[in-house]
Amino acid sequence: MHLFTSKFIDLPEQVTEMPGSITTPAGYSAAGIAAGIKASGKEDLGMLVSSSPCVSSTLFTTNAAAAAPVCVCRDERQPGGMRGVVVNSGSANAATGERGMEDARRMAALAASAAGTDEGEMAVASTGVIGVPLPMDLIEAGIARSAEGLSENGGGDFARAIQTTDRIEKQGAVAVELSGGTVHIGACAKGAGMIAPAMATMLCFITTDAVMGADQLEVMLKDAAGVSFNAISVDGDMSTNDSVFLFANGASGVAVDEGSADRQLFSRALAAVCRGLAMKMVADGEGATKTIELKVTGAQTAEEAAKVAAAVATSSLVRTAFYGRDANWGRLIASAGAALAGGPALKASVAFEDVLLAKDGQASGDVPDGDRLQRIMESPEIAVELALHRGSEECTIYFSDLTHDYVTLNAEYTT
Amino acid sequence: MHLFTSKFIDLPEQVTEMPGSITTPAGYSAAGIAAGIKASGKEDLGMLVSSSPCVSSTLFTTNAAAAAPVCVCRDERQPGGMRGVVVNSGSANAATGERGMEDARRMAALAASAAGTDEGEMAVASTGVIGVPLPMDLIEAGIARSAEGLSENGGGDFARAIQTTDRIEKQGAVAVELSGGTVHIGACAKGAGMIAPAMATMLCFITTDAVMGADQLEVMLKDAAGVSFNAISVDGDMSTNDSVFLFANGASGVAVDEGSADRQLFSRALAAVCRGLAMKMVADGEGATKTIELKVTGAQTAEEAAKVAAAVATSSLVRTAFYGRDANWGRLIASAGAALAGGPALKASVAFEDVLLAKDGQASGDVPDGDRLQRIMESPEIAVELALHRGSEECTIYFSDLTHDYVTLNAEYTT
Repeated sequence: MHLFTSKFIDLPEQVTEMPGSITTPAGYSAAGIAAGIKASGKEDLGMLVSSSPCVSSTLFTTNAAAAAPVCVCRDERQPGGMRGVVVNSGSANAATGERGMEDARRMAALAASAAGTDEGEMAVASTGVIGVPLPMDLIEAGIARSAEGLSENGGGDFARAIQTTDRIEKQGAVAVELSGGTVHIGACAKGAGMIAPAMATMLCFITTDAVMGADQLEVMLKDAAGVSFNAISVDGDMSTNDSVFLFANGASGVAVDEGSADRQLFSRALAAVCRGLAMKMVADGEGATKTIELKVTGAQTAEEAAKVAAAVATSSLVRTAFYGRDANWGRLIASAGAALAGGPALKASVAFEDVLLAKDGQASGDVPDGDRLQRIMESPEIAVELALHRGSEECTIYFSDLTHDYVTLNAEYTT
Repeated sequence: MHLFTSKFIDLPEQVTEMPGSITTPAGYSAAGIAAGIKASGKEDLGMLVSSSPCVSSTLFTTNAAAAAPVCVCRDERQPGGMRGVVVNSGSANAATGERGMEDARRMAALAASAAGTDEGEMAVASTGVIGVPLPMDLIEAGIARSAEGLSENGGGDFARAIQTTDRIEKQGAVAVELSGGTVHIGACAKGAGMIAPAMATMLCFITTDAVMGADQLEVMLKDAAGVSFNAISVDGDMSTNDSVFLFANGASGVAVDEGSADRQLFSRALAAVCRGLAMKMVADGEGATKTIELKVTGAQTAEEAAKVAAAVATSSLVRTAFYGRDANWGRLIASAGAALAGGPALKASVAFEDVLLAKDGQASGDVPDGDRLQRIMESPEIAVELALHRGSEECTIYFSDLTHDYVTLNAEYTT
């Protein structure tokens, strides 16, 4: 399994992909077991712990119906001081009221106790069906077994334990050659499909053994999310459980100094890892057959660029056209025009890869070589540019096509 | 064919449905022919003309990429002074630049000349594929044949000529018993599916023989659209070609006076006709198997209610759950929470018909009779209430489920 399979990702030359996981950086152990929460009997409970204290950074959904574990981590933990996490799949512990809050606190406390950390150092996350209380007896027994199984090779098991409808494995690791030596970043995620508007859940866990400051970590994580997870969730619309956790335990002894070239390089490496995971999510899009990179240019404001990008990327007509391999630029323009409703007449241009299909709001007249266009439409990754010619702001997002399998999966599966 | 088949429509007792069309009110003639624009050879060109001058009112898409015929009608016609319309299907004359504008003007001029009206009295509309110029030779020959075929029984042919992916006929007529006598309203429409966000096109043509003022007509049409076409297009997002035309020629001699009970009654009849057509559009939703009435209550502002309603109604997860007959209230709450992102914790209630599934943001605990819930989920029309408990504003919209057939239709059909 390779993390960087998308043509939309640039990897700096000092960054080397390696087979690995969240336990590839030094000083982390993890486990993943089948606790019986999922009816399928698959892995559904995971734990990750650093053997030494960490600095940490987190990102949570802004959903007003945020799940209990999100509320606990967000409101009752020091964001920079966590060194481990316990997570279950099969049940989201969302829309579960005060009982859900108590269950989330207890789940974290059990994990902290079993792993020998302070309670305040243990984060908690859940994913799965909404509105059903956690089966705490299974969780309790599962945490005890997980803690016994914690291992420096447990990252892969952990990654399996967080999956629900995922069909593609989403984990990997990189080595980063800094001036003071080599550090590692490991990560895994769950999440499939157009996160918004489908409200699927994404969880992501990232570890590093670099020596970092908490403030530094926070800025880097925000930057990385902006070009990865937030570039696929389109407009900040997030599910009840979306969470990203980043831990840095300093076990390599190699520091990443503020303002240094190392700082820039590490930031690029972190962004590449997040983009690798985000591209897997899009490609694993529930039922997806292709990934589209949509670059909206020439907007009057950044907000306008984001609004148009979101409208196009979430248009069912646009997404089914890509599934049908139909280079239907008219649907992109109609969707952009709707996003800009009430404004001056839109005269947009549309290019699929290097083929300019529309110019000044109408067919470009350059009849493209039919074979060339067909080859583009059949490729698994397509770069599309929609130029609004109204200003100089832009926004790039990634989305998948809308397919028969998406409908099957979501009509038959209760999430 | 009956226009009022939805349980969501109340018909005043003075309003009687009758088999009919846009030519049921006195003084209108219409035609619909196959001009060869559609490759299928089906009807694709229609004309409607009143034998005497009319007052008229129109509603157009606010899409910034509005089609040429919309721009011509909106910018180059007196909105209150039209008495006829020429319309084609098979080609939208959208994203066609200056040539498209000239074609739309010429199409109207040809129809005015053939029907013997002033050019300024003839409206024009198109629907179909975006980005392709109109085949003006076929249009010109078709208009000549249509004009010859204009008939007081031509409403049904006209209705067929405006259809594209429609599977359900959308036309009808009513008689309205006013204090001064009987007047009639006839109407037909095209449009299938969730108009937004799918950007499908809707066209609607309404005729009446009541004696009306233009100002009066405009207010009534806006009111009627608010509870019909705009309650299915969710948030004003409209396609490039959406247009509604209402003509009143006064041929009955029966006046609808301002401020009278007749005025109220006529307004309710007009709204019912528009709701009848709108419900057909939802039910004909590309691939749809059911219609959901979503009432969002307890919002802080009308805008908030509309925003939440739009988010839920356009959520692919919510829509596929209805297709799967899954009473998945958690997806509604997750979607509402995303629309209210960043706000205080949402404690919403959800009822499907009279079954309260969620209360205070969690399962209600009243385990519903399984059979009863299953019967609700299997019915073709489901009333859903989502109570936000934040204020007193509300919004009601109608949407369809998202199905395999939707994907098939839009992946294989170029619109």
